Amino acid sequence: MEKHGYDVTYLGIGCDGKINLEELEAAITDKTGLISVMFVNNEIGTRQPIEEIGKIAKKHGVLFHTDGVQALGNFRIDVKEMNIDMLSVSSHKIYGPKGVGALYIRKGLRISNYIHGGAQEMKRRAGTENLAGIVGFGKAAEVSMHNFDWHVKHCSELRNYLVEEILNKIPNTYLNAPLEDRLPGNANITFEFIEGEAMLLYLDSHGISVSTGSACSSASLVPSHVLTALGVPVEKIHGTLRLTVGDFTTKEDIDYTVKALIEVVDKLRKISSVSEQKGW
Amino acid sequence: MEKHGYDVTYLGIGCDGKINLEELEAAITDKTGLISVMFVNNEIGTRQPIEEIGKIAKKHGVLFHTDGVQALGNFRIDVKEMNIDMLSVSSHKIYGPKGVGALYIRKGLRISNYIHGGAQEMKRRAGTENLAGIVGFGKAAEVSMHNFDWHVKHCSELRNYLVEEILNKIPNTYLNAPLEDRLPGNANITFEFIEGEAMLLYLDSHGISVSTGSACSSASLVPSHVLTALGVPVEKIHGTLRLTVGDFTTKEDIDYTVKALIEVVDKLRKISSVSEQKGW
Repeated sequence: MEKHGYDVTYLGIGCDGKINLEELEAAITDKTGLISVMFVNNEIGTRQPIEEIGKIAKKHGVLFHTDGVQALGNFRIDVKEMNIDMLSVSSHKIYGPKGVGALYIRKGLRISNYIHGGAQEMKRRAGTENLAGIVGFGKAAEVSMHNFDWHVKHCSELRNYLVEEILNKIPNTYLNAPLEDRLPGNANITFEFIEGEAMLLYLDSHGISVSTGSACSSASLVPSHVLTALGVPVEKIHGTLRLTVGDFTTKEDIDYTVKALIEVVDKLRKISSVSEQKGW
Repeated sequence: MEKHGYDVTYLGIGCDGKINLEELEAAITDKTGLISVMFVNNEIGTRQPIEEIGKIAKKHGVLFHTDGVQALGNFRIDVKEMNIDMLSVSSHKIYGPKGVGALYIRKGLRISNYIHGGAQEMKRRAGTENLAGIVGFGKAAEVSMHNFDWHVKHCSELRNYLVEEILNKIPNTYLNAPLEDRLPGNANITFEFIEGEAMLLYLDSHGISVSTGSACSSASLVPSHVLTALGVPVEKIHGTLRLTVGDFTTKEDIDYTVKALIEVVDKLRKISSVSEQKGW
């Protein structure tokens, strides 16, 4: 947007991972056209105070868009009650096919066309539609609605167990951002004195997939801007893993993962120059 | 592009459906940055003189993009030999999944990002990829290459039979644009004194799918700009059908279609006020 000549104000986050509502309201000027805040952050899983943001946006007559990709299937979303003007969601986050998503646009709101050409999707996005993907997304949404309560309970219980096990059994580890108001399946944990990439490789060779940043910036060594905003120092960011559980994760998977983590952390800290200096 | 402040020169077509190469060359100025010409037109199936356009583009140092969506699988495409800098193709035209396509970009050519955000597709098109679609497109391309000669022969023979049968058995019909240098499966035929939409509905009820324009402008009553450019008068455009045959079409399908066409044309001309005036 800045490239197109718009002024953009970026809001910081507190140590709870949330934006400050007073800072948001103070940033609104008579030129403000849009507030866009992620419903849930993809790295630390923090749910933003969407209802309050919606109220502030409405009060000031500013459009409110939220990226609900991570929230879909994990939090109740009511676009009317929450004063959401635009909501973007994606299929693969609820076990639907990859490469298909949706943008909810409040009735009466006109936005400019995204892809010009044919008249598909009310002229907003030209091109032959990904029919199989759209149908699959619809079915996945139905299944997700049906399983909602079970999914949230299953994932948050397993995630809590994972976090407890790691923090109890591996010294010098801590959870980034609080557990409350958090994506049910998300754990973002710093392991001091070691490199996340090395842990990732070891876990991968044991059939465990984790992430050291957002999927969109994989293979990049730039420190996560999310953890930076949260105030995590750069050397600790490099020792941070995002571990997520899903519908198909079991307690046995968690135990297997924790065992592998204990092994790899032990190995890496033994060879780490930093840990040597610290007497590990 | 005009909305973004660029000057666009539109080229006309001759009665053979092709652009005039001298007109193209004369239209190039020192400000010309891009020539974009469809490889094959989607309504009348005319193949443009791509090799010659590529030569002209190269001679003048102008980029050459061609929309190869209709051409893929129907004509040999050699981007190097034809001096094509960019080629857009689509999966569903070669029996691949819908909603996936590709843009070939000549090595060394840099274009601006299309969707900003993640680093997917070399940062050019952010967002989780339609994996199943991409794999399906790849497989469809492989099958299409393998079946190329058979496909072209099968479709052009059946199409020629269809055209012959219609022009021989139904009076006051004619083919728009010549058969030569034409999409193998494409027939675009005008039935005088009747409405295409009425024929379409009758054929649809008999399980035959035809089109009265381009698929991208279905449900629109605006006369085809392609037929308009070809010099077909507006009242005749309204009586025009696009009939296409494919790999799964049989001679029996053609006979069934021609029989249905004879019936519907007869019915409609009997009730048509125009045909009444003409003494039909």
